[in-house]
Amino acid sequence: MKLASFVVQGRSSYGVVEGDHVIDLESLKPTLGHDLKQAIANDRLGELTREPLASLPRLPLADVTFLPVIPNPGKVLCIGINYATHVRETGREMPTYPMIFTRFADSQTAHLQPIVRPTASHKLDFEGELAVVIGKAARHVKHADALDYVAGYACYNDGSVRDWQKHTIQFVPGKNFPNTGGFGPWLVTRDEIGDPQDLELTTRLNGEVMQHTRTSDMIFDVRQLIEYCSTFTELAPGDVIVTGTTGGVGAFREPPVWMKPGDQVEVEIAGIGTLRNSIVDEQ
Amino acid sequence: MKLASFVVQGRSSYGVVEGDHVIDLESLKPTLGHDLKQAIANDRLGELTREPLASLPRLPLADVTFLPVIPNPGKVLCIGINYATHVRETGREMPTYPMIFTRFADSQTAHLQPIVRPTASHKLDFEGELAVVIGKAARHVKHADALDYVAGYACYNDGSVRDWQKHTIQFVPGKNFPNTGGFGPWLVTRDEIGDPQDLELTTRLNGEVMQHTRTSDMIFDVRQLIEYCSTFTELAPGDVIVTGTTGGVGAFREPPVWMKPGDQVEVEIAGIGTLRNSIVDEQ
Repeated sequence: MKLASFVVQGRSSYGVVEGDHVIDLESLKPTLGHDLKQAIANDRLGELTREPLASLPRLPLADVTFLPVIPNPGKVLCIGINYATHVRETGREMPTYPMIFTRFADSQTAHLQPIVRPTASHKLDFEGELAVVIGKAARHVKHADALDYVAGYACYNDGSVRDWQKHTIQFVPGKNFPNTGGFGPWLVTRDEIGDPQDLELTTRLNGEVMQHTRTSDMIFDVRQLIEYCSTFTELAPGDVIVTGTTGGVGAFREPPVWMKPGDQVEVEIAGIGTLRNSIVDEQ
Repeated sequence: MKLASFVVQGRSSYGVVEGDHVIDLESLKPTLGHDLKQAIANDRLGELTREPLASLPRLPLADVTFLPVIPNPGKVLCIGINYATHVRETGREMPTYPMIFTRFADSQTAHLQPIVRPTASHKLDFEGELAVVIGKAARHVKHADALDYVAGYACYNDGSVRDWQKHTIQFVPGKNFPNTGGFGPWLVTRDEIGDPQDLELTTRLNGEVMQHTRTSDMIFDVRQLIEYCSTFTELAPGDVIVTGTTGGVGAFREPPVWMKPGDQVEVEIAGIGTLRNSIVDEQ
């Protein structure tokens, strides 16, 4: 099942994406939960069968305004340096532990919504990544059980303001400018993704392939990331683990490539979908 | 005014601390806000005068269970390496920019509540710090105006699991184990603190002074921290900036000093109060 969060006619809702429509779950909110995060926490989405869905309104995707897949995650844990090709381009050593930094929820933006280039810096870069949405409370999770805690997967563009990221060794400032983190287009539930380590991921800037990898090239796989993160913090439904980017980011190109107003950036993961954002300047 | 968050008889409340009592604002929640964060956001606390307070229940502090000053901050921004003495003991260079990492709200603990030593590591260290609680939405704040955005000040013990902090260059894992960040005992409103850069701060472990400084020794002062942070993220009422620690932490002592079950740790800031926690093992 593909699940999207969106706004239609001024109200926030969520629904099941089928083709170029979304089945609006508004009328089921009292049972399912008032937003997608709550619906995941309540764990009732699995009960949705064809029959009740058939009677619900189907909205053309063109008529809704997407929200970030989870607009209000409690925790967004991002992984740095998790693909060997990116390790090499940054000149870093192969890591012994996952590198964890955080994004705030308000640094996110949605599918087809702009990524905002801040006035503070124009060194705005892309990072195409696989996002893992947590399905249930997770603490001290064992590697073998880790995927049981996953609700599903989405695309993420971990948009980075490189000079602010490098002001000190801590990445947080460069990773938290408002509306820089694309999260979409929707969540694909775990049952539809056979192996999260066998997905093809492509980042395009203005149609040109900038990053291309398979998730099999991750240094720490999704299971290891859940095991590690759940050791130092409790994960909750709707929390997001953004699993890191591969080689090809703009900062390490010669000359560097920065995203600028009018650019179109896409993160496509085969079997999930394509997250598409245009760049605008901060107003 | 001193404002504390607490639980009494199973309900969460907040109130005005006077001596060894707290005036319970429970009955004013409909006007003020349902918790201290909301009351700060609503900006009605300044209207509290002697008269309405006189008619409210006064609870002995000994009868309430403290909560973290703000139990549910949206953002907790911590500053690394912000005192020259700590820069020297870590062997780092003097910084050009503030170093920012984050804590999740559930890594916090309250005055007189335990700090929990995790099973994952026993390298549990203290960091006595001045916490700044934001009073109103703050973005692109100028240095000169920055203190206008402060609701008040409290003590913070930025409890750190040192080996997990050093797994990679990103500090997040070592700074987010549950119940490791002491935040208390209460918020002292800005009007009662003349100059936040002229406060005496002392950390004691089992009665012995481990850290002692004045906030005048900060490398980046409170104004600069608000200016910097509000450039990359919007600060909201109840958000917390934890301003960094001075020299004397356990990790850099010879031999290192780790906090262990039964230890008592205190962070005292003259004019604010003393945050006191005991250490227990994770159950």
